[in-house]
Amino acid sequence: MHEPTPLEQMRVLRVTPRFFKAGAGFGVSAFELVSFDRALREAGFADYNLLRVSSILPAGVEPQSAVDLPKGSLLPIAYGVFTSNEQGAIISAAVSYALPTDPSEVGVIMETEGYMSEREAHEQVIAMAEEAMEDRNLKIARLEVVAVQARVELCTTVFAGVALW
Amino acid sequence: MHEPTPLEQMRVLRVTPRFFKAGAGFGVSAFELVSFDRALREAGFADYNLLRVSSILPAGVEPQSAVDLPKGSLLPIAYGVFTSNEQGAIISAAVSYALPTDPSEVGVIMETEGYMSEREAHEQVIAMAEEAMEDRNLKIARLEVVAVQARVELCTTVFAGVALW
Amino acid sequence: MHEPTPLEQMRVLRVTPRFFKAGAGFGVSAFELVSFDRALREAGFADYNLLRVSSILPAGVEPQSAVDLPKGSLLPIAYGVFTSNEQGAIISAAVSYALPTDPSEVGVIMETEGYMSEREAHEQVIAMAEEAMEDRNLKIARLEVVAVQARVELCTTVFAGVALW
Repeated sequence: MHEPTPLEQMRVLRVTPRFFKAGAGFGVSAFELVSFDRALREAGFADYNLLRVSSILPAGVEPQSAVDLPKGSLLPIAYGVFTSNEQGAIISAAVSYALPTDPSEVGVIMETEGYMSEREAHEQVIAMAEEAMEDRNLKIARLEVVAVQARVELCTTVFAGVALW
Repeated sequence: MHEPTPLEQMRVLRVTPRFFKAGAGFGVSAFELVSFDRALREAGFADYNLLRVSSILPAGVEPQSAVDLPKGSLLPIAYGVFTSNEQGAIISAAVSYALPTDPSEVGVIMETEGYMSEREAHEQVIAMAEEAMEDRNLKIARLEVVAVQARVELCTTVFAGVALW
Repeated sequence: MHEPTPLEQMRVLRVTPRFFKAGAGFGVSAFELVSFDRALREAGFADYNLLRVSSILPAGVEPQSAVDLPKGSLLPIAYGVFTSNEQGAIISAAVSYALPTDPSEVGVIMETEGYMSEREAHEQVIAMAEEAMEDRNLKIARLEVVAVQARVELCTTVFAGVALW
């Protein structure tokens, strides 16, 4: 957590995010959208208006332990999400983020989801982030993954994301 | 309508929306995207750059009779949308919003869409909002629905949304 | 390029965009998301957090030769995108933008994508923009298209967009 800046007190959306937080979770309901809402809660992103983005970490972005915006705020977030009602199936979502060795450069966020194990999803997003950083001629200082797996009951959603604000 | 605040005069995107407006409509065209554009016009959201969000009403948000941002502005909005070219089929979209009894708490927005009657869509979004508010241990002070139904001609889009700004 | 305004120096997201830039490109990878990332680079939009919008040019918006926001910034953008792994297939994406004769009015952005030639995509987005401007009773001063075609190898993504900031 950090002290709010004057800009934050004005509560306007920053063009270039300064903070990030990764999280993953799953949710179950008879309704797809409610299962999504519950997956968000487990991931730590409930009660925000998610703005889906693709998927760059600005230079100098800092990790936070939680999203410290007022509830109901707009929250830019890169994510993988998958919902299924195929009873008993294994589904997973994962997101990776790679931070560069040079702190003046960007990092990347990569996500995957689908009928796969958490391990497969984990391996995929690592390979994707490595490829995307190599494309940018950037060396990786740190490469993290958050992932989630669930066995489908009713309607089940898996969600893994990196919020940026 | 309200007097523009200094922040609005600066025309920057507020992180935590203060106003909302619900609307629904349908549109018909040979082109899917033009049918979408026409559905937006009927719903009251034409001429904005819709930013799709999911789907929380911040505490204290106030209903407005129309979106009072300049044309071409970014407009955060939670919505259900469905397009079909299956001639003669009945399609619907609906969105509900639930406001809490405690004005310091958030509300939720739930949407649905597909091959169904307006009545079915209406019932679904009510049940979904009740479930999502119950998940938050929040009592509902007010639960509203806007919905639209159309019989498909050419390419037809149904749209129901709640804009937040 | 333009001098940054005080608002830009504050780096907050403008509600009503002042600048735009169109671009198209394709990318190839074993991973869908990496092929998307490479298509963005070719189109001139790599290293931004794309916020997908639909699809209005505010009155008085000015073309720019490049996006001049810091890397990692949020970038509102209307786009068509298509990814295929059907080896050898021809895929295309195109985006059109129509500017009105009356500079106090909005313009429209229309996009298409899929298994089609660049020529077909080009013709579609022209017809769509004409229809959307006619719906608004607006005469077109200028109608531009950017488009891209690719023959699928591995996983191939075509992308055409108009960024607004």
